[in-house]
Formats: sequence, structure tokens, C-alpha cells
Amino acid sequence: MSAEIKKGYIRPLDLRNGRVDMSHGSGGRAMVQLITDLFSKHFANDYLSQGNDGTLLPEAKGRIVVSTDSHVVSPLFFPGGDIGCLSVHGTVNDVAVMGATPLYLTAGFILEEGFPLKDLARIVESMAKAAKEAGVTIVAGDTKVVEQGNGDGVFITTTGLGFLPDGDELSGDRVRPGDVVLLSGTLGDHGVAIMSQRENLSFDTPILSDTAALNGLVATMLASGANLKVMRDPTRGGLAATVNEISHQSGVGIHLDEANIPVRAEVEAACELLGLDPLNIANEGKLIAICAKEDSDLLLAAMRSHPLGERSAIIGQAVEDPNCFVQIRTRFGGRRMVDWLSGEQLPRIC
Amino acid sequence: MSAEIKKGYIRPLDLRNGRVDMSHGSGGRAMVQLITDLFSKHFANDYLSQGNDGTLLPEAKGRIVVSTDSHVVSPLFFPGGDIGCLSVHGTVNDVAVMGATPLYLTAGFILEEGFPLKDLARIVESMAKAAKEAGVTIVAGDTKVVEQGNGDGVFITTTGLGFLPDGDELSGDRVRPGDVVLLSGTLGDHGVAIMSQRENLSFDTPILSDTAALNGLVATMLASGANLKVMRDPTRGGLAATVNEISHQSGVGIHLDEANIPVRAEVEAACELLGLDPLNIANEGKLIAICAKEDSDLLLAAMRSHPLGERSAIIGQAVEDPNCFVQIRTRFGGRRMVDWLSGEQLPRIC
Repeated sequence: MSAEIKKGYIRPLDLRNGRVDMSHGSGGRAMVQLITDLFSKHFANDYLSQGNDGTLLPEAKGRIVVSTDSHVVSPLFFPGGDIGCLSVHGTVNDVAVMGATPLYLTAGFILEEGFPLKDLARIVESMAKAAKEAGVTIVAGDTKVVEQGNGDGVFITTTGLGFLPDGDELSGDRVRPGDVVLLSGTLGDHGVAIMSQRENLSFDTPILSDTAALNGLVATMLASGANLKVMRDPTRGGLAATVNEISHQSGVGIHLDEANIPVRAEVEAACELLGLDPLNIANEGKLIAICAKEDSDLLLAAMRSHPLGERSAIIGQAVEDPNCFVQIRTRFGGRRMVDWLSGEQLPRIC
Repeated sequence: MSAEIKKGYIRPLDLRNGRVDMSHGSGGRAMVQLITDLFSKHFANDYLSQGNDGTLLPEAKGRIVVSTDSHVVSPLFFPGGDIGCLSVHGTVNDVAVMGATPLYLTAGFILEEGFPLKDLARIVESMAKAAKEAGVTIVAGDTKVVEQGNGDGVFITTTGLGFLPDGDELSGDRVRPGDVVLLSGTLGDHGVAIMSQRENLSFDTPILSDTAALNGLVATMLASGANLKVMRDPTRGGLAATVNEISHQSGVGIHLDEANIPVRAEVEAACELLGLDPLNIANEGKLIAICAKEDSDLLLAAMRSHPLGERSAIIGQAVEDPNCFVQIRTRFGGRRMVDWLSGEQLPRIC
């Protein structure tokens, strides 16, 4: 709905002391006011202001890649980020690791009655900033309000659209024995930042979420010309889940080398304290890439040339294995299986 | 995530007595199990089974139309439908009324811990059936779980993609004085069905939600060749909000004729009982269309030829009015303003 056309009707939101109430989801004037004073203001663009039930985008240039993610992270604000920028980064990254250029986002907000409007404003500003930095436009949105006690502040579902030029697509089923596994940086920062906040832990060096849009890094990697098979960002379930997914999709085993997997010292310390394994922890600004062996040095150099890939490393290799096992050589020279978690280690991490 | 590749890992869900628990949102095995046994099973298609972070769609045929809606309807099951089919219809309709052909949907689920899996299965089956009937494919999804007391059973955010062939687009700013307003059927059925369920009212003739996918009706209307200016489905805020939106977008007044607006007798009775005005009540299977005067009979005939448009009627006309007022001639011959609601009349209606 285009809102500015109805400006005559409405008084400004009380962004200092106001709270979300049920009328903000009603389809009436209060909703128009919320959209005008908050969403339209920060997300302003020609698509959003079309004001029709659907948004008309230009003709696609290439095949479409689409991805959707509902964000329920708790707490809403955490060291290094908040649900606003996270909801942009998460979906931008899922489109980008397909090798596509993310261009458009939609956003569906489910707000809890009583949520402070000033916190909502912070979240919307953070989303707008993240979208701008990632070069994507928020082209459509929706807002619903649920009664106090039937939600938890704010949930945000984003859907991303990107375009993939003709040519080979990246896919989890393209890995062959001998292919090399690269990781773009340190593991566990996001999950440990959230857990530390929840558990009220503090460290000498504060641990920040790594939440970031990876489409710039991906563009650098694609431009290197390396023969990439697949990229994926290890979010929920961590590197362990992501690598297991790929090993099963491609029907190969994967051997990792613990000594080469970068983990910040403070994250490692926190993991020991909390009984967590960095391999299972969600990341929000890292990707793994698997490429042909002969291109791995080329790809590594490209990744390290980008600010979000400075600590990139070669961390493993695909091997022939009908069981599709993922194994890791520990720092002590032993070998252990890397499995998915069966239960829930870190609820509401994203 | 493609799930079937990991079938070896997992035991079937207990769809009779089981409940959603936090592990179903973990990114680990329990989530894979939920996806395999429920979502993949009912939504099965080649796009979903790609199993990558994003879904690769074929090259677009025309300009893209996108729309998103978060669904928080309460109760989840209501006379004539449920949140599952509603979440498909709502988004399909927003794409269709743009004149585009809806083809793809994404779905983000936010589940509350403790929600019965058998109810979730009913919802997913209903979504799958609605998608099939509407000719759209659910190509990507996401599932999150929040703790009991931080959600309300199930919230579903759908995003729809459709394609619009070259030519004039429909838009709320294209209406000119003299253009004619048509409505595809009775007003208020959805909202009154929900309210009756909530208030435990029963009527001799049960009132059912009108929830339905309108893309077939829209195709019939487009094929008629009538000079359509805009279509829109009067959901939250009802016909009153929709017509006011358009009058302001186009800078015209709109005069409606109450005697010509179809309302079921039982809906009218319920509205009197509940103190509601059918003009403000949400509909989920109706649309309004505005066309050039000379084509209104042609368009009306086309609408009435479709099962979802049998009770279509010409309900008003655009007029010159710098104030963009919407007015209605009442059955008693008077004239009154039709305004948006400022507050919330029917919370969580969709």
C-alpha cells in the first residue's frame, strides 16, 4: 500500500514513547501511519511506492534464484547486530551463494502488541542500512500485529530474488572426490555472541556476531574464474550440518582438518565454557566453497583479497566414500566423525 | 534443504500424537525429519528437491510481479478454510490482481513449541491442495520454532511470484472520472465467518469464509478484452479501505451504490448483531475491478461467467472530486461518506 498519498489523514507516530497496538495491523489509518512514518521512510524506493497489491519489477535478466527465511532471533539486539540487519543478510546470502546477484527483498513483519516503537524504528533503520550496503531493494512488505503474549517482539520473514546468468549453476550435488573445501573465516562468532548475551557472559574481548552480506565476497570469488562446485553459508546447524548436507547430496565423503579451521581464541574459550562445539554453531557472515583441486589456490587468493574473506582457509577435501561420512582430523592427530546434531543446541539463533 | 537424501538417518514423525518441539527448528536431524515427512511429502516438486540454499527457477517470461503476506489468522481453522489455504490464496490473489500469472510461492513457517503435529499436517495438506488448485508451486521454504508462549500455533509468511506480459499494467493510479467499479461477489463472508467462530455464534445457515484463489477469475476478465484500469482484493480494511486507497492514488472521487452491493442475508444479520459494517470487513475471495465505462457490461458478463464471479455487480463509478472522497448512496436514498477505519475492528483476520 502506498502511504504518502494519504498523508493528509494521519498524525506522526510517537517514536519516542509509543508502542505497537492492534490497530497497527488493521488495514486502516493506524497501519497507514506506521507504514508512512517508519517503513516507507526508511525503505523509500520507487517499487514500494507503486502502492498496488503486488510490486511490478523490471524484466528478469537471467534465471531467477529465490530464497526465504523467517527470523525469530532472541534477543532482538545482540553484539554486532540485530534482527533487522540479520534478516537482510540471511536471505541475501542464501541467494548469493547460488552464484546469483541478489537484487530484491520482500519483508513480512509480525509484531507483538506493546512492542516499543523506538525499538521497531531501530530495527527498520538497521534493515534499511543493511539492504543499502548489500545493494538490494526492499520492494514489498506486510505488517501484522498479534496480541501481547502471542508473539515475541518482532519476527521478520524476508524473501530474496536474484538473477543468475546463463552457464553452469552451483549445486550441492556437483562435488567430486579430490575437490577442495574452503572456509571464508572464523567459525562460531554469531552463535557465541547470541549465547553470551543470553547467558550474560562477558569476555575481555567482546564477541561480536559476524552477520554480514556476502554477495560482494561471492562476486570476487566468481570473478576469479575458479571452477566452483558449490557455495553455502553455514547458519543453523553450523559447518557440521552444511558439510553433511553436501556430502550426502554429492555422494562423497568429506575430510576436514581441524588445525586449519579458524576459530577466534575468545570464541573457543566461550565454547568450552558453554559446552559447545564451534562446528555446530551458526554463522551469519561466513561461507564454505568447494572447488576443483587445481583452482583452490586461485580461489583462496581471491577470497583473502576481500575484507570479509581475509581469514579464508583451505579446510578439507572430498574423498571417495559410499557412506558419505564427514570426518575431521583433530589437532591431536586423531580422526572423528562430524555428525549433525540430532536435537537443539542453540534455539532461536536466527 | 533437500531432505530425502538423508532418509537413512531419521525415524518417521509421530503425526498422531507428536508435537512441535524446539529441535524441529534446529537445523539438525529433527528439522530434516519434519521437512521430509511433512513439507517435502505434501509440497513435492523438482524445485523444492534441489536442496540448495536458494531455489533456481527457469528464466522469467515477462516482467516479474512479487507480493508478500504474513498470515496470523486466529483461529487457525475456521468455517470454510484454515491458515494453510488462506496463506496460498492471499498471496496468489495479490499477484493475480496485478494482471500477472502467479506461478511460484515461498513459505516461511513460525511454529510454536507444543503445537500438535496432526494440526500442522492438516495445515500443510490444505496449503498443498490450495497451491495445486491455483496452479502455483511452492518452491522454497523455511521453518522456525519459538518457545511455548512466544508464538500462537502457526504463523505463515508466503511470497508470490508471477509474470506479467508486455503491455499496459494495471495500477491504482489509472482510474479516471466516469470509470465503473465492479465487485465480484458478496461482501463480508470471511470476516464474519472468523468472528462467528471466535464469538461462538451459530446461524441457521452457516457462514463460510470465501477464501479462494482468484487467478482463474482474473484470467477470464483479462481475456474479455475490457479496458481494465485496476483490480484489487478487499482484504483487511474491507471494500472501504480498498476503494479509498484507489481514489487517493488516482485523485478521483468514487460513488458507490449500496443497493447494488451484494451481501448475504445471514452476513448482514451477523453484522447487525456484532455491530460491524460489511464495507469494513475483510474478504479473501473477492475482487473489485475498475474499467472504462464503455466496457463495463462486457466485463460484468465475463465475471459472471466464472464460478467465483456469479454474483458480480456494478457497484459504483469514479467522479471528479479534488478531495478524493468515497461516498455511498444508501438504500434509503441518502448519501454518506465511506471512510477507512482508524482503529482495529477485527484483529487477526488474515
